[in-house]
Amino acid sequence: MTDPLRLGIAGLGTVGVGVVRIVRQKAALLAERAGRPVVITAVSARSKDKDRGVTLSDYAWEDDPVALAQRDDVDVFVEVMGGHDGPAKDATEAAIAAGKDVVTANKALLAHHGHALALAAEAAGRVIRFEAAVAGGIPVIKSLSEGLAGNEITRVMGVMNGTCNYILTRMQSEGLGYNALFEEANKLGFLEADPNLDVGGIDAGHKLSLLAAIAFGTQVDFDSVELEGIQNITIEDINHAADMGYRIKLLGVCQMTGRGLEQRMSPCLVPDSSPLGQLEGGTNMVVLEGDQVEQVVLRGPGAGMGPTASAVMGDVMDIARGFRLPVFGKPATTLTRATPARAVTPAPYYLRLSLEDKPGALAKVATVLGEAGISIDRMRQYDHDATTAPVLIVTHKTTRADLDAALQAIPRLGVVSGTPVALRIEQV
Amino acid sequence: MTDPLRLGIAGLGTVGVGVVRIVRQKAALLAERAGRPVVITAVSARSKDKDRGVTLSDYAWEDDPVALAQRDDVDVFVEVMGGHDGPAKDATEAAIAAGKDVVTANKALLAHHGHALALAAEAAGRVIRFEAAVAGGIPVIKSLSEGLAGNEITRVMGVMNGTCNYILTRMQSEGLGYNALFEEANKLGFLEADPNLDVGGIDAGHKLSLLAAIAFGTQVDFDSVELEGIQNITIEDINHAADMGYRIKLLGVCQMTGRGLEQRMSPCLVPDSSPLGQLEGGTNMVVLEGDQVEQVVLRGPGAGMGPTASAVMGDVMDIARGFRLPVFGKPATTLTRATPARAVTPAPYYLRLSLEDKPGALAKVATVLGEAGISIDRMRQYDHDATTAPVLIVTHKTTRADLDAALQAIPRLGVVSGTPVALRIEQV
Repeated sequence: MTDPLRLGIAGLGTVGVGVVRIVRQKAALLAERAGRPVVITAVSARSKDKDRGVTLSDYAWEDDPVALAQRDDVDVFVEVMGGHDGPAKDATEAAIAAGKDVVTANKALLAHHGHALALAAEAAGRVIRFEAAVAGGIPVIKSLSEGLAGNEITRVMGVMNGTCNYILTRMQSEGLGYNALFEEANKLGFLEADPNLDVGGIDAGHKLSLLAAIAFGTQVDFDSVELEGIQNITIEDINHAADMGYRIKLLGVCQMTGRGLEQRMSPCLVPDSSPLGQLEGGTNMVVLEGDQVEQVVLRGPGAGMGPTASAVMGDVMDIARGFRLPVFGKPATTLTRATPARAVTPAPYYLRLSLEDKPGALAKVATVLGEAGISIDRMRQYDHDATTAPVLIVTHKTTRADLDAALQAIPRLGVVSGTPVALRIEQV
Repeated sequence: MTDPLRLGIAGLGTVGVGVVRIVRQKAALLAERAGRPVVITAVSARSKDKDRGVTLSDYAWEDDPVALAQRDDVDVFVEVMGGHDGPAKDATEAAIAAGKDVVTANKALLAHHGHALALAAEAAGRVIRFEAAVAGGIPVIKSLSEGLAGNEITRVMGVMNGTCNYILTRMQSEGLGYNALFEEANKLGFLEADPNLDVGGIDAGHKLSLLAAIAFGTQVDFDSVELEGIQNITIEDINHAADMGYRIKLLGVCQMTGRGLEQRMSPCLVPDSSPLGQLEGGTNMVVLEGDQVEQVVLRGPGAGMGPTASAVMGDVMDIARGFRLPVFGKPATTLTRATPARAVTPAPYYLRLSLEDKPGALAKVATVLGEAGISIDRMRQYDHDATTAPVLIVTHKTTRADLDAALQAIPRLGVVSGTPVALRIEQV
């Protein structure tokens, strides 16, 4: 195979420009590694005239990404536009229908339509690859679907939204509150146009749903991901967690349980000495656990031009080398529909309550927890202001269902003000 | 492709038995993922009658691994015998000559004969894969040669000998000396039959030489790896390093410099807050740096039945899926012979000297360093016994050549007893 592999690139934002740069600057290296030239034949973006700092005049221009996807001189449709509906979806479908392979960085598209797209692509004998959609430059899709292919995967965890991790680690290091850091991240351009995609855990949830499909051979089911954002984390939570030897991370966890597939993306406490606990700033980390390999931890940049383009090019090079794999690691027709299991795996929890200064208040809370079958591992009461005192409780292992029962009963006691905060302590 | 992929397994030690177990227990899963069954047809080992806890009666038995490699019913020769010459080499060559693909866990074989074997395999249109040879269960070969294929690799680092890391971290945590921990590791069966393979850095050096070949497109050149073992590290070094915020690791580093390819495997100081510094016990870590991806860190078990068999099976599954790649990521005929560059990259160094209690002793040492162009960043003198005082010096960046010049001059001053210890402080 020495024919050039011809790319059509849809989207010339940061990632698209990064891919153009690599293909232009490393032509000889890529050809040697792939055994054939890798070239760009056509590009598409919203504005043709914008100066993007790269030469595009060698490539055909298409205003319409669907037209790009259908061009005869395109072998691989590289979709780096983003958006889970509209042009990205239309063009990806058109590419598959026209017999093109697809490389995409679009987690939202695949989280919402990944199963249908995989069925269509595989029926047409095409591949869709999406390393850049999950954890930026970290080769996690490849490690999971190929490197660990001899394992039954038992659990996948990850910190996969750099903005949230930036906010949480800066809260700790600077002693600033959530709102101040949110504003800082916004000014630095770290937030999506809809910030809830970041701080609400949606973006990271998209990524988790893709990893779960590969790990457990199930159809992508983003709607069943339990999502909880970081908006309610206070500096006090961060500090209290630190006092007890923990860090708070927006942590994704998926695992197959006896009752079905558990997928959670929520703020969790992890030991500060663990690799996840030590992860600072915008870096991403994914933990892969298999019955043979035990645990593999992958760490790297979760975003940015170079790292994301690196992941796109990894996929392009695989296609150039003739590697062909079902989209989610086994044929889409064999992927099962998993029963969603909502947080059935027990864990210790961190609770923060604001206790009113009334006699017997703490005893009442302890009684409610006890009645729900929840035993207390540690409890701390901090200096209190005029009328309320923050109380921190670390429970022994319990299920979220039992905990929720207790949390619903606590306000009725009349001794707690505000809403209790409950964060899972994940065993990593 | 739905014909079964037929394995012949040479070597039924821990790894071989681990592979047999996976193939037997996960037949359905492997077939679904690979799109075809993966089966074992024949095995070979030294003793046929030994009870290995797995059923072998379904497979043909060969006393001679060469005969196994040549069997008509074997597609992939799985070499998990070990040894860099003798039967492993003969059988691997025989497999290639007979038109078989090869999966091997044998770092020594490839470090010594990798280039010749790659040339032979590629001339015959066969692949040799060796994920299990480097860093156990971590998919590092795959990440480097495939996931980061769009990068120019700038540096690869790694802690890749679990036994050495076990000894060094236990020295710190238990406050025990090197000899005590060496004995402990020996009793636990962590050491190779020739312990110098571990503590002398040879085993880890083998691995580094394989990573360097892939990273820089060069012919494997183990003989040019600068090797220094951990035998001279004292508990005092560990403690002094810790006082200054460092950990001592047997660290491999390879990078292409203006003067050639630098490959070093030696005890180094790394910051205790870095991922490498935080690596405890027998776990391995590899750091991959590329011009696009910046830095990816991979961490996982470096040895053991499950993890090593997981890596072997990753390679087997790739072959079953039809992935075919040159042995070192680009055709062996295009791999260059790199000029070896011995430690040309400057770095700060940690020096430990035993200074005699004589007037002006420290000034004399400082003068010699200054004359060699080495400036001092930090210096500490510890409580001293009767006649000598340990002095620790951290230098500013210097080359090893300049440092060696100074180290040769220092004993002639007549104020230092014993041999000075010099450890590089690696910027990770």
